[in-house]
Formats: sequence, C-alpha cells, structure tokens
Amino acid sequence: MGSLKLPTSAFSSIIPIRSFFHRHQHRHLCLSLKPSSASTPKTSIPPSPKEKSVSNNDQKSKPEGTITPRSQDFNAWYLDVIRHAELADYGPVRGTMVIRPYAYAIWEAIQDYLNVKFKETGHSNMYFPQLIPYSFIEKEASHVEGFSPELAVVTIGGGKELEEKLVVRPTSETIVNHMFTQWIDSYRDLPLMVNQWVNVTRWEMRTKPFLRTLEFLWQEGHTAHATPEEAEKEALQMIDVYVKFAHEQAAVPVIVGRKSKVETFAGATRTYTIEAMMGDKKALQAGTSHNLGQNFSIAFGTKFTDESGQKQHVWQTSWAISTRFVGGIIMTHGDDAGLMLPPKLAPIQVVIVPIWKKSEEKANVLEAAVSVEKVLKASGIKVKLDDSDQRTPGWKFNFWEMKGVPIRIEIGPRDVSSGTLVVSRRDVPGKQGKVFGISMEPSILESYVKDKLDEIQSSLLEKAESFRDSNIVDVNSYDELKVAISQGKWARGPWSASETEELKVKEETGATIRCFPFEQPQGAKTCLMTGNPAEEVAIFAKSY
Amino acid sequence: MGSLKLPTSAFSSIIPIRSFFHRHQHRHLCLSLKPSSASTPKTSIPPSPKEKSVSNNDQKSKPEGTITPRSQDFNAWYLDVIRHAELADYGPVRGTMVIRPYAYAIWEAIQDYLNVKFKETGHSNMYFPQLIPYSFIEKEASHVEGFSPELAVVTIGGGKELEEKLVVRPTSETIVNHMFTQWIDSYRDLPLMVNQWVNVTRWEMRTKPFLRTLEFLWQEGHTAHATPEEAEKEALQMIDVYVKFAHEQAAVPVIVGRKSKVETFAGATRTYTIEAMMGDKKALQAGTSHNLGQNFSIAFGTKFTDESGQKQHVWQTSWAISTRFVGGIIMTHGDDAGLMLPPKLAPIQVVIVPIWKKSEEKANVLEAAVSVEKVLKASGIKVKLDDSDQRTPGWKFNFWEMKGVPIRIEIGPRDVSSGTLVVSRRDVPGKQGKVFGISMEPSILESYVKDKLDEIQSSLLEKAESFRDSNIVDVNSYDELKVAISQGKWARGPWSASETEELKVKEETGATIRCFPFEQPQGAKTCLMTGNPAEEVAIFAKSY
Repeated sequence: MGSLKLPTSAFSSIIPIRSFFHRHQHRHLCLSLKPSSASTPKTSIPPSPKEKSVSNNDQKSKPEGTITPRSQDFNAWYLDVIRHAELADYGPVRGTMVIRPYAYAIWEAIQDYLNVKFKETGHSNMYFPQLIPYSFIEKEASHVEGFSPELAVVTIGGGKELEEKLVVRPTSETIVNHMFTQWIDSYRDLPLMVNQWVNVTRWEMRTKPFLRTLEFLWQEGHTAHATPEEAEKEALQMIDVYVKFAHEQAAVPVIVGRKSKVETFAGATRTYTIEAMMGDKKALQAGTSHNLGQNFSIAFGTKFTDESGQKQHVWQTSWAISTRFVGGIIMTHGDDAGLMLPPKLAPIQVVIVPIWKKSEEKANVLEAAVSVEKVLKASGIKVKLDDSDQRTPGWKFNFWEMKGVPIRIEIGPRDVSSGTLVVSRRDVPGKQGKVFGISMEPSILESYVKDKLDEIQSSLLEKAESFRDSNIVDVNSYDELKVAISQGKWARGPWSASETEELKVKEETGATIRCFPFEQPQGAKTCLMTGNPAEEVAIFAKSY
Repeated sequence: MGSLKLPTSAFSSIIPIRSFFHRHQHRHLCLSLKPSSASTPKTSIPPSPKEKSVSNNDQKSKPEGTITPRSQDFNAWYLDVIRHAELADYGPVRGTMVIRPYAYAIWEAIQDYLNVKFKETGHSNMYFPQLIPYSFIEKEASHVEGFSPELAVVTIGGGKELEEKLVVRPTSETIVNHMFTQWIDSYRDLPLMVNQWVNVTRWEMRTKPFLRTLEFLWQEGHTAHATPEEAEKEALQMIDVYVKFAHEQAAVPVIVGRKSKVETFAGATRTYTIEAMMGDKKALQAGTSHNLGQNFSIAFGTKFTDESGQKQHVWQTSWAISTRFVGGIIMTHGDDAGLMLPPKLAPIQVVIVPIWKKSEEKANVLEAAVSVEKVLKASGIKVKLDDSDQRTPGWKFNFWEMKGVPIRIEIGPRDVSSGTLVVSRRDVPGKQGKVFGISMEPSILESYVKDKLDEIQSSLLEKAESFRDSNIVDVNSYDELKVAISQGKWARGPWSASETEELKVKEETGATIRCFPFEQPQGAKTCLMTGNPAEEVAIFAKSY
C-alpha cells in the first residue's frame, strides 16, 4: 500500500496550512529558490465565482485573477490550478485536505471504473474498522519500521486514557489478517478476495495537495491464496488493472515494473508499481500491487488446511490506488490555461456557452442551446449549459478552460440561423482547435461530439507518451546517469549493484530506482555502476 | 446528525469483543436475565461455508448450527442472524465492527439509491478531513455538551505529542462551517449544498452491531441558505427523501415527525426524524434531518452579503442516514429462519438451486439452471446459481433462507422434462409460498419473477405496517401510557408538558418521546400528563 510511501524528494516543499489561499505568503515561505512573486508574469484567469462575486452590472470579459505559467514554476502552477479550478483546499489541521466537489467527481469516476473491474476479477467490497490496536502494527517487523514514524495515535476515548493506544489506519494489512485468521479454515475458503474504499491517515511532514496529505482516500484490495503462484498471479493481475485504468481512462501513460528491494512496501516480498512522468518530468508512483508472501500470515497466524490435510500459512497480496492519482492527472495534462481532463474521467465533458449581444437574440440562442444540451444529455454525454447572465462569454471560456472541460460548444445568433454551432477542443489551443459550422442535427452532432471526445482521449495519451519517451535517456555509466538526472530526465540503464550503491545514487543525484520495467531490452547488459553483468535495466528518476 | 445519539435504553446490552463468535460466553456475560443456553430450543440452521467446511464426502441435508428463535430472545436472535448470514463481525477494538461483503452490498444498494436522490435535489458529494481541532468542538455550546463525552482523541502524530489535540470526526458540522466561512461571500454563493459518505467515530459504551458501534459509516449532508425559510424547506425535503427511501426501498414503514427539545440534535434548532418499529416493538431512529438555524454560522462566523448589501449569518441544515439502517432492515423483516431482505436492496434477488439425484440427471439440470440464470441476469435481476457439489439442496435452501434471498428457484429432472420450474417465496414459509410449474420460457419467466419481486416488496411493507399499527396504542392519561409501554407497545397521546415531566416518563417507564408525528389527529387535545390543552400528540416508546 505504498502509494504515498515514497522517500521524500529533496524538491518537495513544505506547504503551510491554507497556503494556497495565500499565494504570496506561500512563495515566500516555501519556495525561496524561486524569483520573487513581484516579478512573476501571470496568465490571466478568472477567480472562482464562489470566491469572488461580481454584481450584475459588473460584467468583465477579462476577469481578474492570475495563474503562474507552468514552465516558470511548476509547483506554483500546480497549486494555482488546484485553487482556481476549485479542486481542493487545505483543512484546518496542517496537511489535511478538503476535496471539493469538482475533484471529488473525478474520484467518483475513478471509483466507478475500478469497482467494475474489481468485481469482474472476483473481489467483494467490505469495511474494516479504522482503529487498530498499536500492538498489531508491531507484529510484522518491517511493517512497524516503515509505518511507526507516521502514525496518528488515539490515546483518549470517551474522556478516558485508553489502556492500549490505537492507531488510526495507515493501511490495513494488520487488521485484515486479524480477521482473515478467523474466517479462513480450509483451502475451500480460498481465495479470499476483498477490497475497501476508505480514508487512511499518515503523519507526513511534507505535504502537497493530492500527492501527499495527512489523510487521503484510496481503495485497498486484500487477498489470501493457497499457493504462492496464485498470489503472484493476483498481484500481477491487479497491477495490470491499474495499467489499463491509467492508459484507457486517465490517459496517463505509465511504466509498469517491479520495485527494488529498497523501495518495496514495508511488509511485502515484492512490490509492483506504475510510474508516470509528470509535466516537470518528475516521476509519480501512481499505484502499487504487493505480493506479501507469507509475511503477514506468519505474523498473524493466518493458516489453512490444504487438500492433503496439512496446515499452511496463506499467501497474500494487497494493492491500492489513491486520490494521489487526481494530482497525477493534473500534472500530466494541465497547461498554462489550467486543468485539462481526459474525457473519460471528466465530470463535465462538454460545456455549452451561448453568445448574444442584443437582448432580442437571447431567446433564440438560449432555445438552441437548451435543445443541444438535451440532445447530448440523451446520448449519455456529461454536458453543462452555462447560461448565466452574470458573466461574459469570454469569462466563461477562460473559466471552463481552467476547469479542463474537454469540449466547448459556442452558439451565437448566426449559428442559430444556419442551424450550426462551433466546437472548440480544450487540448488544441486557439483557432486550430476550433471548428465552425457543425450541424445541430441531433444524429450528426452526437456522433461528431463522441468522435471528438474519443480523439481528445487518444490525443492526450499520445502527447503524454511522446513527452515521456523523449525524456527517458538510456545510460550505460554512472556519469551518463548523473547527466540525465541533472537535466531533469529519467535515466534507464542496466543495474545489478548493491543497495548501498542504490542509496549512494539517491544521495548524490536525488534520483531513486522507480522500477525494473517489465518491458526489458534484449541482449547482454553490464551494470552501469559496477560493470558486472546485469539481468535488467532499471529506471532512475527524481520523484514526488 | 444524531442517528446514533439516542439515549441508551435500559435494555441495551454490553456486547464484549467477538462475542457473537462465542455465543455461550456472550449469553453468560450479557444476558443474565435470559434462561441458560442449555435449555434454549434452537432452530436448525447451517453454519457459513467459510466458517466450517465439510469434505466432499461429508454431505449433510440437515447442517449443524443453530439460531435462537426470534420470539424467545430477540437480542440473541439478532446476533445469531448477523453471524450466520455473514453480515458483520466485531473488530479487535471493543465496539468496532467489520462489515462483511454481504452486508456491505446492502449498504452499497442504499448508497446507490440515495446518491441519485441527493444529486437530483442539487447536492454534490465531496470530502472533509476527519481530524478536527479540539477547539472547534467547543465553539458551539450545546454541540460540545452533546459530543464531548464520546470523542476519540488523537494526541500523538508522527511520534510526537501534538500541541492541539485532534478529534476523530463524530460528525462534521464544525469543520464544514470552518470551510463554508471561506467559501461563502455573497448571496450568490447560496444555497451551498454538499454531502459526504464517510466513517464517523463515537466512543459509545454500549454497542451492538449496526445499531451502535464505535465507528460507523454514514452520509452527512450539509447545506447553507440565505433565509430561514429555505433552510426549513431543505430540512423537510431531506427527511422526505428518507421517508421515501424507507418505504419504497427498504420496505420499512416509518413515522416521520419532529423531535422534542430534549431529543433534538446537539446544535440544532429542530430535528426531524423517521422512527421505525422493530420486530420486538422497540423504536429505531432510522434517519434525521436537522434545521441548524444560525447556531453554527454564529459560532464560526459564516456570513454572506445579502441582496441589500447587509452581512447576515447563513441558515443551515444537516441530515444523515447510517449503516444503522442495515440493522433496522434485519430487525424489521427477519424471522426464525434468518434474514429477510426487501428485493430492492437485496444483493441477491433470486437464487437458483439445481436438484439431481443420479449423476446422469446432473448435466441436463445444470444446463437448464444456467440458461435460467442467463435469462434472469439479462433482464437485470440479481441472480445467483448455487451449483456447488459440496452441499445438498436442503442445506442450500436453509442457507439462502438465512441470507434472506427473496426468491428461490428449484429445478429438478422432472422440471427439465416439462420445461418448468418451482418458485419459492422467502416471505411465505413452507408450501404456501411455493408455486410449481412456472414456465422456463424466457419472457414468461422474466415477467413472473419481476411481478413476484414487486409483490414481495409490497408485502413486506404491508406486513410491517400492520404489525406496527397494531402495536401503537392511543393513550389519554399517564396511566394508560404506562400500561402501553409495559406491554412493550408504543403510546400515542396529546402532550404539552414540561421537559421535567418528559424526563420523568423516561425514568419511570424507560420510554422517550420518539417524535411529534407530522400526521396529527384532528380536534381539541388535552395533555395526557397535565390535563392542559395540547396542540399535538407525541409518540412514546422504548428505543434502541
């Protein structure tokens, strides 16, 4: 369950409470390496209507509000997008996060997809309590080592000091095994395959919205099997579900592979991971699947009677994807105009902006807009008609671009006369992304919009893939690795060196082994560090 | 948010950890008023296949395992059903509960229905952090009084003593208002209407699975409005959503009304409630909707500028339904054979049990069963084919009755020859509920099963309604009230007495005012306690 368990990169910043409500303060406190905000060029973007309201008479075509250009300061840009697209706010407790409706709807789309896949692959949802006796955490040696520094501990209940301290779930392997031990008796009870969608709490010192917060939401799958082969197959099956989700739904290309021993989840024998390249080229561990072997079943005595009547410890897996993935989507696709959402996960796939100048035009334009909305809604497209009087079309264009809506439809008086409309793609800026004269005829419009959404979905994936591939450098020596990392790129090279050397790379370059990718080049390999034979290439990168 | 805030009835029992895995121990420890378990007659029911497996050669038509008859010991029956239908287990921490897949699927069905209704009525889902600064809880005077005795408090984070203690969310009004204060500026930001599906923690001393646990799952809606009228309308709208849910989905008839001041949620100006009568005639508060007035907005400074430019505090509501409702469904419909689920919330609506004796019959019977399964699945019915070799048909009948599946289809060799099957209703025991010779022809079968499911759904509601109505007694004096309560019934009578007298009733009879029902008898009324004029009748009952 290590999706937020990455070693903290040297480039992470400490974000004080409510910092992204106070951008200048935040810059000052956290990003002292950056140029002062006074000299920062800004892209004009609108504030949220909820944050600042204008009166009916105060229409503006260029609304106030600014967003830092992505190329200039990726971290500031990320926080600006989160604020202006109304994705999240910090909670009152340091490092906690309020997930606002727009981002929560993205999370719901993620849940909807994965829930179907989990059930198709034989898993049932259920719920384990979040309060875990402290002693449970101590039962598996590497687990306690990994998690004890970041536990939130309940010591008072109902006004009284508790006899045994309770841990607020940082992950659930321990309590799951406590229960599995009661439910599993014979091989006929296996495989036991469950999942839960819950909150987890980890006392992180360096936090960043979505990527690393004191509390986050995730699903955690837990399974028990009769053989090591079945457990391995399950761990691989679930990482494959995540790969497909990332590619097909989020348009986030990922490299799937195995973690090094150093980076393996505390308590697992093997961790599989999907690693994505963000817009600043840093890696994001976006989902993990662990083969737990018998580590927890031995610690908790989870045994079954096999077909030959012998008692054996079960073989287990666990796997998780969290709200961190929402951060990954922002940082993969977003641009200087704000968020850019893959159509399959977008809460709003199409926004309709009606345009009129004279009041006598209004009725006709709105009537056409409403009928277009109905047509699209009926065909299952998530559509929003922004017919508010309080904002100009220009303001609305900017606002919905900030929100990352894949397609904008514009309808003006001339369009109404000709029975056509204008379609703009969020992912292709300016006139290039704009097509005039699309027919309003329902069947034509519906198939045009659906095709366009598919095209955008594929295009986002392709663009992210080519960005990633052009930023991975094949290296054959430590010097080449250092150059690649210092350029902010990912380095891929043969590796068979020791853990000590792996930690040395981290110390000297800030990069870690993200994974040994499943996809390996053919031929003999020589370890980039030692010159010894190597069986695999590894990918090194700085990461979130 | 008081769905688990009921005053603890004198008849609640303290259930030790894992007690319903150890029934005898439990009896001994908790229910000392009951006859010893040795003399307890038992209804034969099967153990769960996960709990006890039999070998292939060990087929039994009358499986071991027992369930206490409902009429004999309602509490023991309830715990037996929860265990044998695999609904829940206690977690390792006293009073916490593991919700097993079958019960969780009921909860998911509840979520699916309510989510649609919440969105239709203009609410968005989102997520607020669960860790709340202790000082927040103290800001609203009656809120702190109500909740401080049952808080779980985090005092250690990341290995260090915290400067300010943190409360694990018992309900979220305080943190919601902290955020609303940042989001609300003008009347244009109103109404603000959100909901979250989360876990909450309350340090209850007397716990019982589903009904009252240290941690439970719920949804909590939170809204802010510009006028008291709008807030009142919203509070009423949401209690109405709950009424419809209870009646139409859960087949649980409820009486909707207003709580007395004494029973109003800590921090609300008015609490609306739905009250259901359980099989033992005790009342269950099954959902609440609160008009919070300006109590929290004053405490947290949640203001908006109204249309005339004046600053005003917002008017708020909150409303909740929890996993407690699953307990309500068990205790409304269940019988001596176990759980009985309303078709609309049943994870499995139809179970198919194929029956054969000679191995040459097996192939034909299974083929027919599979094709019936396909037909029903294709028409959207939740169907399960129990084709396991390890259990006899008789065992399966008992098992799926225990699980409360509304319809059982039996298919034997003779049925296959005649192209028919047998349909048994869970809610009509024995031969009376069994219809032979139903055609397997897809369109006939589909419409027959759908009609039957509708019939069962209505029949469960009617049965529960008539049970309830026959157990509510109209009373006109305190003596009549005492008689009714001592008979275990609900008493309905005119009430305009003081809080002191309300508390006296509780002390002397164990009954509380469940609500002043919306539906009131016509005509002049005289307070049953004081003889003074009364405007309303109240309902008194013992409750969970």
